[in-house]
Amino acid sequence: MQRAAALVRRGCSPRTPGPWGRSRSSAAAEAPAVLKVRPERGRRERILTLESMNPQVKAVEYAVRGPIVLKAGEIELELQRGIKKPFTEVIRANIGDAQAMGQQPITFLRQVMALCTYPNLLDSPSFPEDAKKRARRILQACGGNSLGSYSASQGVNCIREDVAAYITRRDGGVPADPDNIYLTTGASDGITTILKILVSGDGKSRTGVMISVPQYPLYSAVISELDAIQVNYYLDEENCWALNVNELRRAVREAKDHCDPKVLCIINPGNPTGQVQSRKCIEDVIHFAWEEKLFLLADEVYQDNVYSPDCRFHSFKKVLYEMGPEYSSNVELASFHSTSKGYMGECGYRGGYMEVINLHPEIKGQLVKLLSVRLCPPVSGQAAMDIVVNPPVPGEESFEQFSREKESVLGDLARKAKLTEDLFNQVPGIHCNPLQGSMYAFPRVFIPPKAVEAAQAHKMAPDMFYCMKLLEETGICVVPGSGFGQREGTYHFRMTILPPVEKLKTVLQKVKDFHVKFLEKYA
Amino acid sequence: MQRAAALVRRGCSPRTPGPWGRSRSSAAAEAPAVLKVRPERGRRERILTLESMNPQVKAVEYAVRGPIVLKAGEIELELQRGIKKPFTEVIRANIGDAQAMGQQPITFLRQVMALCTYPNLLDSPSFPEDAKKRARRILQACGGNSLGSYSASQGVNCIREDVAAYITRRDGGVPADPDNIYLTTGASDGITTILKILVSGDGKSRTGVMISVPQYPLYSAVISELDAIQVNYYLDEENCWALNVNELRRAVREAKDHCDPKVLCIINPGNPTGQVQSRKCIEDVIHFAWEEKLFLLADEVYQDNVYSPDCRFHSFKKVLYEMGPEYSSNVELASFHSTSKGYMGECGYRGGYMEVINLHPEIKGQLVKLLSVRLCPPVSGQAAMDIVVNPPVPGEESFEQFSREKESVLGDLARKAKLTEDLFNQVPGIHCNPLQGSMYAFPRVFIPPKAVEAAQAHKMAPDMFYCMKLLEETGICVVPGSGFGQREGTYHFRMTILPPVEKLKTVLQKVKDFHVKFLEKYA
Repeated sequence: MQRAAALVRRGCSPRTPGPWGRSRSSAAAEAPAVLKVRPERGRRERILTLESMNPQVKAVEYAVRGPIVLKAGEIELELQRGIKKPFTEVIRANIGDAQAMGQQPITFLRQVMALCTYPNLLDSPSFPEDAKKRARRILQACGGNSLGSYSASQGVNCIREDVAAYITRRDGGVPADPDNIYLTTGASDGITTILKILVSGDGKSRTGVMISVPQYPLYSAVISELDAIQVNYYLDEENCWALNVNELRRAVREAKDHCDPKVLCIINPGNPTGQVQSRKCIEDVIHFAWEEKLFLLADEVYQDNVYSPDCRFHSFKKVLYEMGPEYSSNVELASFHSTSKGYMGECGYRGGYMEVINLHPEIKGQLVKLLSVRLCPPVSGQAAMDIVVNPPVPGEESFEQFSREKESVLGDLARKAKLTEDLFNQVPGIHCNPLQGSMYAFPRVFIPPKAVEAAQAHKMAPDMFYCMKLLEETGICVVPGSGFGQREGTYHFRMTILPPVEKLKTVLQKVKDFHVKFLEKYA
Repeated sequence: MQRAAALVRRGCSPRTPGPWGRSRSSAAAEAPAVLKVRPERGRRERILTLESMNPQVKAVEYAVRGPIVLKAGEIELELQRGIKKPFTEVIRANIGDAQAMGQQPITFLRQVMALCTYPNLLDSPSFPEDAKKRARRILQACGGNSLGSYSASQGVNCIREDVAAYITRRDGGVPADPDNIYLTTGASDGITTILKILVSGDGKSRTGVMISVPQYPLYSAVISELDAIQVNYYLDEENCWALNVNELRRAVREAKDHCDPKVLCIINPGNPTGQVQSRKCIEDVIHFAWEEKLFLLADEVYQDNVYSPDCRFHSFKKVLYEMGPEYSSNVELASFHSTSKGYMGECGYRGGYMEVINLHPEIKGQLVKLLSVRLCPPVSGQAAMDIVVNPPVPGEESFEQFSREKESVLGDLARKAKLTEDLFNQVPGIHCNPLQGSMYAFPRVFIPPKAVEAAQAHKMAPDMFYCMKLLEETGICVVPGSGFGQREGTYHFRMTILPPVEKLKTVLQKVKDFHVKFLEKYA
């Protein structure tokens, strides 16, 4: 097992990468020095330059919307202008954006949202009574009965109550307190906010934040921005990307030389890796956090996206309570959910919530204060979150249609997860772990040494080079593994399984053909 | 003219204030030390405490939603429980939340939003064609034709085009480029993001951010959070809160001893002070920014809220261009607008935009990268912004109703602005400058020495004490001037003029009665 040299990477690095990080040409990154010497004609030197800007922001990297996505946009424009390509459309499999891939919104959710938006519709016979009931309840809790008023900074009261009721049901009766629920602008906002409060210290007392590798790059980006220390723990690719507590121990032990590890972030089901953690694993992680006095962040936005018949979603909260009072009254936990994933895929509304456990009452005050600076999360997103946690129940008018739509989306995703795994594993030089959950495949690809050399000549990471070629030759846009982190010398990409089944089959066939040709070319 | 001692206040102070800053009792602020000595029974010491948390976040203060608003919430609960008070309802005049105060949404805006939310309604005869046309245009620009897809991080293309067209119209033909438009989660998000990129340096090279005093506390909060240096310049209360460039010169000169002043923030029309800057003043400010090499931030969210017949809104962008190429190709400017204010008052949707001028191309890349970490602003808020910048025009079906609704809101606000000024100035010990624009009165109140002593005994700022008493005795919730900043020894409060006319009259009468009694009591 190769151990990467930089186990602990400083958030703020002395490199000056391009805006999207290390995969960009370093020549571009050095432009400000040139500009200084040769200012544009008639223009004074600018105040805000790459040299003068916030170095922590400069250090931020975010691959999911990085250079490959910019390139995809350029290619789309070229196609629109009639420029001939070996393909007719760009397929954006880089981001978990279900509705952009043709998934239809859940009717009930949109009915309630429309009623809240334009309450005249409450008199319309074309809307079901259960949708009207929910819309009235939400509006009654809004200032002036309008989605256009600010809500409390923590979110609309009755929606926080609905979230708490949902969590209690989900966790088989483990109680949830609306006071511990904070509605957020997507899950990203909650994660950023709690990390912002957690980070402190200088030198060796700087806060270490443990994140999985591969990880979702929001975490590394926020760690950079906050000038905290990123502490990597590696998921076990040989073992379906499982989390091994011995690896956590290794990581925390080594990190203590450099920083003060204070936070442990877990993504379950995994992104980009798609594994679903076993109950035993979660128990081990909680025990480890308790032992090492780590604040736990559980990113559970894919809690509805579990496909493997052998897997079940267990929330960290539930397991924490089942482990007894020593844990449930001591371990500090924040968990996150969102309207963007699951079966609803309402990314654009930016709805989400965070539940905090064992947060010090004074820190809760600090949290509300910090949230109040931004006034409130979008109230339409809060309303969307309410429908996610408070869907139609048996006996209600919309129950049947709602259930049918939900099952259809989740059933399709399960089929596509299996299909993707099977097809990738038929390609020589590609290995793909089972997609137990979430929305992504993260296959490992063999990149021949000659291709690695070619990538170096283009000043690109080898997997960026691979993904750029894939995009240019097939129109398929995926994200290089280097954007999520991977063991040195291994290469991956992340691809969503969101295209409709027939299109996904075509995509997979095209990736296969591309890969075979790529291996031949660089043999 | 008294010069406040602390002209330049460090963002991060050695005090440990309560979550809402200096107005809280310091006893409460010292609780963590107590907790450490006497941990709760069976509970380990927590990881995240006031002592261990991010000190920059701890230093953040945000008065608009501070302790007075918490108290208002408590009183509302008591009223609901039937506890008798000298009043029957709490009137929240603390925040510019128009619809919460009963202002009706603009029908056309909500029609377009409902159509975008639930496109089945595009077949309904109850919606006008011009609303359907706009909804179709927005949806066609969204991934999967859905508000539920992520947009580009910079915002939906056609909405940015509409914003640019609006600015060009507003500024009498000065061109605006959609590439310079960034859609944001309310204006707060844009202001925070651009400040985040601007701040850098250590020690004496730390970034100084010039803000007016009084200011809108978003600025001081973000400056604290970013550990930048707040550089105060005082508005001239004796001269209708005008901005005097000599005061800017004084502030920047003194600041240079401590930091590197790099940013100048202007709020026009003013918040909380309601002044509207003259064209001459804006020209002076731009020349000053050019001379001192300052990056200009123009917070213009109240651009539609100008009431004085002698005043007009001039955008910084327009004046910049009219000053000629030396300025228009050199001065770096970011200006902000929002769906929350104006005549629409759509706060809950969190829509906004930022226009940047002369931003270095590489910084634009950095900006998009930073925005992309949060994926995108709420797409429903973007759609709301589109209607604000692209309303019905003469000849369109909805034009008449739209115009009527818009004029009604703005006419009411103008009447209420005059009414408020007049009534306050009839009260002995209250002086109120003309409300030329925005949505607030910021009257100066005389607080007798005995009341100042009483406040000190309660460990409160004198104006906090005054506002707490006002709330407890009348149910009227306003924000103490200390939350916005004011010259030492002067006291103010901010009150919105948003309640309906008749209610506003009652509110003003109650404030008058309270004030007279207060003066008597503490004579």
